[in-house]
Amino acid sequence: MIRVAGAHSALGGLLAQEAGFQAVWSSSLEVSSSRGLPDASLLSMSEYLQAAAHTQSALTIPVVTDCDTGYGGILNVAHMIHEFEAAGLTAVCIEDKLFPKRNSFADGGQHLESAEEFARKIATAKRAQSGPDMFVIARTEAMISGLGVEAALERCRRYADAGADAVLVHSKQKTRDQIVGFLDGWDFRCPVVIVPTTYPDWHIDDIQKAGVSAVIYANHGLRATVSALRTTYRSVYANGDTTAVEDSIASVQDIFALQRFDAWCELDA
Amino acid sequence: MIRVAGAHSALGGLLAQEAGFQAVWSSSLEVSSSRGLPDASLLSMSEYLQAAAHTQSALTIPVVTDCDTGYGGILNVAHMIHEFEAAGLTAVCIEDKLFPKRNSFADGGQHLESAEEFARKIATAKRAQSGPDMFVIARTEAMISGLGVEAALERCRRYADAGADAVLVHSKQKTRDQIVGFLDGWDFRCPVVIVPTTYPDWHIDDIQKAGVSAVIYANHGLRATVSALRTTYRSVYANGDTTAVEDSIASVQDIFALQRFDAWCELDA
Amino acid sequence: MIRVAGAHSALGGLLAQEAGFQAVWSSSLEVSSSRGLPDASLLSMSEYLQAAAHTQSALTIPVVTDCDTGYGGILNVAHMIHEFEAAGLTAVCIEDKLFPKRNSFADGGQHLESAEEFARKIATAKRAQSGPDMFVIARTEAMISGLGVEAALERCRRYADAGADAVLVHSKQKTRDQIVGFLDGWDFRCPVVIVPTTYPDWHIDDIQKAGVSAVIYANHGLRATVSALRTTYRSVYANGDTTAVEDSIASVQDIFALQRFDAWCELDA
Amino acid sequence: MIRVAGAHSALGGLLAQEAGFQAVWSSSLEVSSSRGLPDASLLSMSEYLQAAAHTQSALTIPVVTDCDTGYGGILNVAHMIHEFEAAGLTAVCIEDKLFPKRNSFADGGQHLESAEEFARKIATAKRAQSGPDMFVIARTEAMISGLGVEAALERCRRYADAGADAVLVHSKQKTRDQIVGFLDGWDFRCPVVIVPTTYPDWHIDDIQKAGVSAVIYANHGLRATVSALRTTYRSVYANGDTTAVEDSIASVQDIFALQRFDAWCELDA
Repeated sequence: MIRVAGAHSALGGLLAQEAGFQAVWSSSLEVSSSRGLPDASLLSMSEYLQAAAHTQSALTIPVVTDCDTGYGGILNVAHMIHEFEAAGLTAVCIEDKLFPKRNSFADGGQHLESAEEFARKIATAKRAQSGPDMFVIARTEAMISGLGVEAALERCRRYADAGADAVLVHSKQKTRDQIVGFLDGWDFRCPVVIVPTTYPDWHIDDIQKAGVSAVIYANHGLRATVSALRTTYRSVYANGDTTAVEDSIASVQDIFALQRFDAWCELDA
Repeated sequence: MIRVAGAHSALGGLLAQEAGFQAVWSSSLEVSSSRGLPDASLLSMSEYLQAAAHTQSALTIPVVTDCDTGYGGILNVAHMIHEFEAAGLTAVCIEDKLFPKRNSFADGGQHLESAEEFARKIATAKRAQSGPDMFVIARTEAMISGLGVEAALERCRRYADAGADAVLVHSKQKTRDQIVGFLDGWDFRCPVVIVPTTYPDWHIDDIQKAGVSAVIYANHGLRATVSALRTTYRSVYANGDTTAVEDSIASVQDIFALQRFDAWCELDA
Repeated sequence: MIRVAGAHSALGGLLAQEAGFQAVWSSSLEVSSSRGLPDASLLSMSEYLQAAAHTQSALTIPVVTDCDTGYGGILNVAHMIHEFEAAGLTAVCIEDKLFPKRNSFADGGQHLESAEEFARKIATAKRAQSGPDMFVIARTEAMISGLGVEAALERCRRYADAGADAVLVHSKQKTRDQIVGFLDGWDFRCPVVIVPTTYPDWHIDDIQKAGVSAVIYANHGLRATVSALRTTYRSVYANGDTTAVEDSIASVQDIFALQRFDAWCELDA
Repeated sequence: MIRVAGAHSALGGLLAQEAGFQAVWSSSLEVSSSRGLPDASLLSMSEYLQAAAHTQSALTIPVVTDCDTGYGGILNVAHMIHEFEAAGLTAVCIEDKLFPKRNSFADGGQHLESAEEFARKIATAKRAQSGPDMFVIARTEAMISGLGVEAALERCRRYADAGADAVLVHSKQKTRDQIVGFLDGWDFRCPVVIVPTTYPDWHIDDIQKAGVSAVIYANHGLRATVSALRTTYRSVYANGDTTAVEDSIASVQDIFALQRFDAWCELDA
């Protein structure tokens, strides 16, 4: 069972790795939020790739990049694989919505690509990789767009048969029911990944028993960051000095430790 | 009195602006930490510029970029001004240490450039700007490197005479004494900026009475982010689900609001 | 009459400016070729923007960026304008094909967007600009996709009415006939731009008399570069030394002059 | 015997590879010229790395990056190796001048770093690499800075002993005499690389007999490009149409062939 934490920078990735996660999700919601922009295919592949590569550079665990729709059509997917491989990234996830996409939790704008076309994208991605290490996750937004469990199953079977290394099944229901329904119908021709954002109380042990291979906690780091920054900046501004926050925030020495400052300086000893 | 908050991304900048700050400090400690690297002139001008420009793009208040030593010699400073102007940035700060520098709170490695050479950098920066809007802050690390108040005063006078729009006086003492000493001796030929990291209890009203024009709270956002991420990732991993953190972190709807998601979607209505 | 030369770097832009051109076209064919990639919406907006901004930084004449389809949908066009404005660019051109596009001279793959949708892109672009300086050119690929002069006229009228600052009419016929037909039917509600790649013998004076306001020589610099590099590399490799090419290539001193090396060094005198 | 051609883009690299060269030199003179800037450590490591990585992406032969002084001190060299390795580059060259450097053919500004300090840089570079594939070339500018053959020999011995995979000996004399003198005194504890810019008539067979392992034709592609662009732009502007240049420049179909347009389109067949 692989547990994956969302992040948008090397800093977040380092802290996720420190906490024990086995991989980091370079989330397009997180990365676009870090730029003050909606998660709606506005940032370019170059920018998502850069964020993921910067995160990977600092880590010993793998980064899985949330590549939205693959950034366009079939040729864009092939180019994406070339560029991600060249940057040393080993896992990507693409989803079966139309470019430009909107965030799965947004109202409206959830337009599915045909299953046939998306299966071609998956097959293209697998053919485009030059080495053995690229792991391609096919994400279905069938249930996000209003279709049911059967549609999700049918799509995922196609994507697995097209070569997907895993499928990601996304649901925005308040319960795990859709996901459980999916797992009941799945023949496990490839592993299943889930993102329990709206059904937060499903324990990892139970998720594993249900047959899931990997869980992505996609945006909790971002959401914690927003709360912490909002509270801290408001306190400093309202109080007129920083004494009220000093005890609850990391020290400058903590920051140096995260940067491995001493290890770096030893290079120059 | 200008109050400035440190940030390393548009997200941090947006929350600082929301809290009321008049400007944002694109801190080299924050930006290098976000990359998991020490604050030791490892990231390049391009990377610091990109971080600052991304932050500025999302804000209506100005970003002041922490440009370390100016990234090399006299020609590098001229090039820096050209590039920052072209990217729409209107304020930079350079310091009188030798390239490559180390963070001011690090033990050792605090090597000062000659005052004469640094005054030439300031004069070069002011001559290099093509429009009226670039504000150049000269930062002395005299007291950081072990010299006293007199040395800081002498250097700042030179830098002001060379054209600096303001001087920044940095101290790592546990009290405000060095800064107060500096202000007692300063003739205010240009405004003074301070960074009260190690003397956190000096209230903004008292700072203003002492003659300071701008205060930079340089790294509290980063330090709050590290604490929040560490706590959140550990909780999610240790608990096996996210219920324990859900109430203390921002909601996905909060994130959408920060991204101005609805306003963006209206463009396509 | 504005004459515009295609380029993909500051170096090309400098030499176009030196030759007398009034503007530079940051061509997507040139930029993608410089990366060894087809002109098929593979490079991202970030990459085209960077190439254009680097070119603009070195010039005193404006750069007009070939922005393909606007890099996606309506929101992408708005974001594009924000980013190009922030980078100091003042002219963009978008075309009425579907994303991802293929180069206009390629066989096949020339799929038009509906005129209504593209007119919305133009209107969005004009509303998105925050200052007065962004010039938005609407390019119709009607004739490239196999439609006739009437369709091009109808589309261009719509785009002009949606706010386009100029229209660009593209033809890949071996003669100027389609363009002349277009100009005969045009009421000049906004200026007309042409790209005489396949009808190279139309003299600038005659083009002007026909009512055209700007001419883009879109890719001759690239094509000259390919010939020169091919010849030079082959000669050096085949001959085993560089004597045969020395007289026909610029000197190192010429290179220094283009870089304004002496003027830069004077900054440090 | 390895023959290496200078380039600043994938396009140049592709044409060098086509001509038969065994490697490409991502020249800092070429890259800075492509930006319209002097070769004086103005562009950042990020920018030189990006140019080299873009070139490497398009090629099957290796790119050797001209990394100037290593972009600063010991820590910058270690960081450089990490970043170049992560980007898939396998060969770098650093030189024993002080940062910021000036181009070797410029008058003045040729300040040598101490041999001891530079040997530490070489040792640091070799220790910093995480895999077996990074080839580190130590370049001495001893003779460029006015010292003689003995000084170059002494420095190169030190650099080889510090771990350099090869040494590059640079001379700006009009004859090959300094280089021949160096080779006469060299014990070949590691291979020798030369850059025959100012002594262009030394044939590759004779260079090989003299004991050299690799020759870099560093900037002929750039110089050919400048001549071709200058001639072409002037002709188009002066003549008022492009007929005069059409026969001497590559065709649009040639450009498509270089981009491998058809092979790309087959992905979408």
